[in-house]
Amino acid sequence: MEKIYLDNQSNTKIDIRVFEAMYPFFLENYGNPQSIYSLGSISKEAVEKARTQAANLINAQTSEIIFTSCGTESNNLALKGLAKVSKSKGRRILISSVEHISVLNSAKQLEKDGFEVIYIPVDSKGFVDQDILEKSLTKDVILVSIQYANPEIGTIQNIKELTSIVKKNSSALFHTDAVSACGVIPVDVKELGVDALSFSSSVMYGPKGVAALFLKQSVKIESLLSGGIQENSRRSGTENVPAIVGFGKACEVAVQELDSNLKHLKNLSSKLIEELPKRIEHIYLNGPFENRLPGNINFSVEFVEGEALFLLLDAKGIMAASGSACANKNLKISTVLSAINTDVALGQGSILFTLSKFNTQEEMDFVLEEFPKIILRLRDMSPLYSHFLKTGQRKAAGPGTDFDDHDYCEIE
Amino acid sequence: MEKIYLDNQSNTKIDIRVFEAMYPFFLENYGNPQSIYSLGSISKEAVEKARTQAANLINAQTSEIIFTSCGTESNNLALKGLAKVSKSKGRRILISSVEHISVLNSAKQLEKDGFEVIYIPVDSKGFVDQDILEKSLTKDVILVSIQYANPEIGTIQNIKELTSIVKKNSSALFHTDAVSACGVIPVDVKELGVDALSFSSSVMYGPKGVAALFLKQSVKIESLLSGGIQENSRRSGTENVPAIVGFGKACEVAVQELDSNLKHLKNLSSKLIEELPKRIEHIYLNGPFENRLPGNINFSVEFVEGEALFLLLDAKGIMAASGSACANKNLKISTVLSAINTDVALGQGSILFTLSKFNTQEEMDFVLEEFPKIILRLRDMSPLYSHFLKTGQRKAAGPGTDFDDHDYCEIE
Repeated sequence: MEKIYLDNQSNTKIDIRVFEAMYPFFLENYGNPQSIYSLGSISKEAVEKARTQAANLINAQTSEIIFTSCGTESNNLALKGLAKVSKSKGRRILISSVEHISVLNSAKQLEKDGFEVIYIPVDSKGFVDQDILEKSLTKDVILVSIQYANPEIGTIQNIKELTSIVKKNSSALFHTDAVSACGVIPVDVKELGVDALSFSSSVMYGPKGVAALFLKQSVKIESLLSGGIQENSRRSGTENVPAIVGFGKACEVAVQELDSNLKHLKNLSSKLIEELPKRIEHIYLNGPFENRLPGNINFSVEFVEGEALFLLLDAKGIMAASGSACANKNLKISTVLSAINTDVALGQGSILFTLSKFNTQEEMDFVLEEFPKIILRLRDMSPLYSHFLKTGQRKAAGPGTDFDDHDYCEIE
Repeated sequence: MEKIYLDNQSNTKIDIRVFEAMYPFFLENYGNPQSIYSLGSISKEAVEKARTQAANLINAQTSEIIFTSCGTESNNLALKGLAKVSKSKGRRILISSVEHISVLNSAKQLEKDGFEVIYIPVDSKGFVDQDILEKSLTKDVILVSIQYANPEIGTIQNIKELTSIVKKNSSALFHTDAVSACGVIPVDVKELGVDALSFSSSVMYGPKGVAALFLKQSVKIESLLSGGIQENSRRSGTENVPAIVGFGKACEVAVQELDSNLKHLKNLSSKLIEELPKRIEHIYLNGPFENRLPGNINFSVEFVEGEALFLLLDAKGIMAASGSACANKNLKISTVLSAINTDVALGQGSILFTLSKFNTQEEMDFVLEEFPKIILRLRDMSPLYSHFLKTGQRKAAGPGTDFDDHDYCEIE
């Protein structure tokens, strides 16, 4: 059975050109970039080349790129590092209610450390409420962190407008988690006006174990990892040279292929977004139609449990995610679906397909064929669905299906 | 010209078996371990296998291993995470004066955050002063961190004795930075009685970008990276699967080869330690003869500048370090040499060879042949040496060589 990988928000397959760029840095060029003999210099040069490639992807200066070990670290560094360096000016931080768990939990940690966190709500499509944002910009706000694009429901925020509101009304720093956006859609830090931006290798056909934080030239940060002088003392620890080289190459490839990949992803995802509701009743797209990450498809399927749906898809070789990564291990509804006021029963029946440049039209056709069959099979087993068929009413059909008996989980 | 790599405390060449174990996790098995479809399960199983391999190296339980991105992160997590979780019990932390810069600077960061750090001195061979340690164990000491083996001068502390002193006289937690020791000499956490222990892949023939913290079952820690549930919520962020797999394999290989590698390294380093002072006058071993890391050779060479020595060795294809990694970019004397009261002029002429299992007797013979020639050449150019030859006196010969005009730098 051919496998169809549609969980690319979680992790992408590495591009062979990326792996080939990394390869010599495992076995041959193993020097430490901090050493000045030849073997060290080769590593140093490779790291600096990758830094330029990463900077080019987002129109930054080379010196504005700090390499980290993952998107989570970039977000932790941004949130904690910028909050702590600014604490003499104020203690209030604003984040949106649909941030990645690494932003949410960094903010929660900051709350424990004496900061105050205000959560800016989003509308039913996941867009940040600009009025509430503006009203929340009190004098003691030191940091605003709003994600570029949501990995779960695909909502692309208008970051340029949001930074402009923040900069007009306050002196707060602006960070955006662009992990889901960079490499997929054009990102230009100068145009956006952000002070800091996180982006990661493992969701743009690069290796795991490396990511970056863009930090505007003049902006100071408190480092998260104390130690040596690596990354200009802003991120200590021996540089992960092969991974950094791979990330650089992935950024270079992304620049070259951005337009064609974007078109390809839009074609593929439009097909599913338009065709699936025609083939099967009672399914609803989560997130917006416009300003949506190409490749992101998130449906709530009524009268179906996401976990069962996920498992039957897997049995057909289709790898997806159920609402959010953590939903794979937890039937609770994700914070993002909860933030856009998704009905809990609907949220529990949500399924997320995230596509990559490696996916094909044939794969989409297979999903279009198999997905409705699976839904029909699951609904055949569903007491909720038979109740609905009999009465026309959408309500709990018995113990264990009480819609109020729910809890929220966090996205990973 | 054949290259001779003798800077293995900085970074080792990867073992081909390690790379082969990693390889399928780049191109084929790219699933996220947190996903439960087949591709995710393969990654999950591989990470857990690696965790067992890492645990076996140090006689820990599998669940006691937390994977991190580098030794620096492991040390940061240990110092900051254990201090912060214990802050209700006290605010005092003890570390030795010869710790790695990631421990030193984590401690300095904790000082800024309201903790008090006491530095326990070492003797002229780098061994921690046990009396001062014992006397410093006041009631408010919550954490003691003393390194297992010093990467610069090779001193292996008697950690078992030190933990016993700490446990007898206090309720403080005990962490040891065993990055230089693990994979080279036997390390058994149960026998040592430590609560936490850092070890790293990139100095034991494993890949860069991965390390671990052993944390004793019952011990709580505040995580450094906030986010998802990875590593039992103690280290969030997508797992760097290929690197973790490689680290696991490196641990397995280390267990198998520990005895033979140890013997090999001892043979090679004994040769240099014994022979070099016979072939060239006025050179002095830094660190102890006994209880020394096999493969560590650190000489102070009188009347010679470390940088020039380093460069001439490099010109002969011999890659070494000058006293400490940072000394490569800085002529100042390292904190370790300063802590063992090395004369500043002597410290500036220090050279560090750290060997690996890949080094050979032939390479040692080449060093024994070339090193004295280089010293003679440098001394021919040295005003200090000609002053010494004329007067028999060791003192500054003019401007720019004033022994008092010095500063200390930090080891990377």
